[in-house]
Amino acid sequence: MQPYALSAAEAAAAIRDRQLSAEELVRSCLSRIAARDGQVKAWLFLDPEMAIRKAREADKKQAAGAPLGPLHGLPFGVKDVIDTADMPTTQNSPIYPTTQVGRDAACVGIVRHSGALIMGKTDTVEFASGGRKALTTNPFNPKHTPGGSSSGSGAAVGDFQVPLAFGTQTGGSHIRPASFNNMYGLKPTWSLASREGLRMSSITLDTVGWYGRSVADLVLVAEAFRIPGLAQRGTASVKGLKVGLCRSPVWDRIEPGGVAALEAAGKRLETAGAIVEPLELPPAFNGLAAARDLIGAHEGSAAFLPEYLSSYGILADDIRKRVELRESYDSAGLLAAYALADSCRPVFDALFGPKLDVVLTPASPGEAPEGLHTTGDAIFNGIWTLLHVPCVGIPCVRGPKGLPVGIQLVGPRLSDAKLLAIAEACAPVIDAEPDWARKTLLG
Amino acid sequence: MQPYALSAAEAAAAIRDRQLSAEELVRSCLSRIAARDGQVKAWLFLDPEMAIRKAREADKKQAAGAPLGPLHGLPFGVKDVIDTADMPTTQNSPIYPTTQVGRDAACVGIVRHSGALIMGKTDTVEFASGGRKALTTNPFNPKHTPGGSSSGSGAAVGDFQVPLAFGTQTGGSHIRPASFNNMYGLKPTWSLASREGLRMSSITLDTVGWYGRSVADLVLVAEAFRIPGLAQRGTASVKGLKVGLCRSPVWDRIEPGGVAALEAAGKRLETAGAIVEPLELPPAFNGLAAARDLIGAHEGSAAFLPEYLSSYGILADDIRKRVELRESYDSAGLLAAYALADSCRPVFDALFGPKLDVVLTPASPGEAPEGLHTTGDAIFNGIWTLLHVPCVGIPCVRGPKGLPVGIQLVGPRLSDAKLLAIAEACAPVIDAEPDWARKTLLG
Repeated sequence: MQPYALSAAEAAAAIRDRQLSAEELVRSCLSRIAARDGQVKAWLFLDPEMAIRKAREADKKQAAGAPLGPLHGLPFGVKDVIDTADMPTTQNSPIYPTTQVGRDAACVGIVRHSGALIMGKTDTVEFASGGRKALTTNPFNPKHTPGGSSSGSGAAVGDFQVPLAFGTQTGGSHIRPASFNNMYGLKPTWSLASREGLRMSSITLDTVGWYGRSVADLVLVAEAFRIPGLAQRGTASVKGLKVGLCRSPVWDRIEPGGVAALEAAGKRLETAGAIVEPLELPPAFNGLAAARDLIGAHEGSAAFLPEYLSSYGILADDIRKRVELRESYDSAGLLAAYALADSCRPVFDALFGPKLDVVLTPASPGEAPEGLHTTGDAIFNGIWTLLHVPCVGIPCVRGPKGLPVGIQLVGPRLSDAKLLAIAEACAPVIDAEPDWARKTLLG
Repeated sequence: MQPYALSAAEAAAAIRDRQLSAEELVRSCLSRIAARDGQVKAWLFLDPEMAIRKAREADKKQAAGAPLGPLHGLPFGVKDVIDTADMPTTQNSPIYPTTQVGRDAACVGIVRHSGALIMGKTDTVEFASGGRKALTTNPFNPKHTPGGSSSGSGAAVGDFQVPLAFGTQTGGSHIRPASFNNMYGLKPTWSLASREGLRMSSITLDTVGWYGRSVADLVLVAEAFRIPGLAQRGTASVKGLKVGLCRSPVWDRIEPGGVAALEAAGKRLETAGAIVEPLELPPAFNGLAAARDLIGAHEGSAAFLPEYLSSYGILADDIRKRVELRESYDSAGLLAAYALADSCRPVFDALFGPKLDVVLTPASPGEAPEGLHTTGDAIFNGIWTLLHVPCVGIPCVRGPKGLPVGIQLVGPRLSDAKLLAIAEACAPVIDAEPDWARKTLLG
């Protein structure tokens, strides 16, 4: 097997055991990128020489016996709305074609100083918000979107170009691409991973997350972030696990692939001994999707004012309109939206306990839609973003067109470590064909 | 009168009427800085030639008949935890001695593209959070602190070195220096002014604000930020204004200067026809100060992890300790703190209406304490920060040592425009000796 085909956890172990060098891994990833970039187009910035130089430094550090971080030697892709000290941050916007910020975003600094090799910047919907789309295609069918706004990070990890990458989520920009690209993803609890150095779109909603190709990969990055309770998370068992199967208040937007994924995941868990019961959220939760939209729009009117003033002529029309909301600002509606979210958060947290361990719910309406004019529908992600709860995306089935569809596991706020333990137990059951992607893409 | 002695609104009018050029104003401010910087030490970065060049460009723009922004030609100081495209952002930290970020923070972009001249970077408590203090002294007595963490911005505006500056507030870092330096300050509603490009310490608490030397100055900047409802705010009248005089749940921390300021402001407003009644906050609000501390500490454990990993040896001890909280993270306590804040916010908003127009409350315990080892006590600011409500700082009296003490007016969330209208009416009453600072500092 080529090194690029290894998951992050597999590659990390091989590097620690000196069966693989960081340079070999980086060169292997670069060869995969070179072979596939003409089709997948995941990258906005890539400097192969810089990547190899960093890998050599990592190998030297290991050879010298220096203490190594949990991500030592692992190539890491960074969505191009996230600042990197040594690469441009363009936000895929004509307003920032060459901007280079001489300082890492918090998340980049954390993984860099935990040993990761920052490989390059991945394509994204402009500002992770509106305007122009990424050029990236779905690795499993280039006529389809990889999802968005974390398009390049989703496709790069899904296509075996890098083992790890950062995405961000304001609506469904992180977990939806995980579903469309057959990947694992963690969106941690809001406030648990610093969002400093990410392009801001909505302060209440924007959350950084990471992609890998197994739960163990997600745990490795969580170690770098020192997610509280991680070392003490123990192991969970599927047998007796109380799973709330939640169609969510927006089930009318589901598609056949999404139905298949949710049903398959529920049945597989039940067969493995879990207690799977339907979970209906309280009626107040029906308003959360609209509340998310209102909060996102109003906070966006603050976030994009600088570009509106500096670059009106080249600012995308949908972003301009968001800023112009300030002329007809619905203060009462916005306060009601905040109040609804604020009151639902503890109610959701309190559902967990003796009767409920984890929520199982769609990660996307179905498989990736055709065309690059869309990145798909965020509707099954938005309420979890607004609730600030941790979500783990897990691959599950293939939809009617043969494209992957995942599901997500959701826990209460700040239970990230426990949720990862539950995901470790459930993933081998839910992701019933773990080699499907390797076979399909790598033959 | 020297141009540097003009308020922002006065200078803006003079520039528009072509009685003053931007270059004359900048040169005047630079002369004031040159005369005073050896004592006040407000600046971490200042490039007089760059400032003069920008002023000349502004004058040329005006001469050419180009449309001018509301802040045209006005020198603006920027706290050095806020990114500026053309100057270093050191955060007053040995970790970032020369870092230059090639992109403006949102707030800087907004005022720059509204005509302001970014004058330089002002000294600050390290990261606006902990570690080393600013070297800045109080303009009215160099043995005393100007407050913090917005030390340099507070002193620079208070000392007539620039008419406007940005501060930030996580505890009491913006409104407290307004009190200590005889200044006007607005801390807008959280989420109404983008905090992108500010050093993050706590996502729930960090808020950008601005200083001026009159309410009209604060309104000018609010225009640049397109604060909703500003154009329709109308005028308020002190006669019949319902003022809730709020000692706040932390009154046991008040000092003689703070008592004097609150009593004087209440009496002056009453004499001018306002209906001033004591306002006691509901008992639940007694927990907000502790909730703020807990949220600030826990969110700080995420915010400073990058520096902990990259620069442990030179990271200040108090910041290190905050990161190490992740090892004994109190998830239940943190969720309870969020829940308390979330439930108090709408309760506070609902106090306003037929029975209450505005809250009058201390801006600081009293006058600036002696010594630069302290920046004073944020206790009278923290709960308003956590409540996300807009606050306007207004100068009021002199304390036992002859140093200024202000008060603050507070409104419900998103009422910033109305609060500014109320402050426009109240300020001439509360700030009974508006020429005191000019006389004291300028003779």
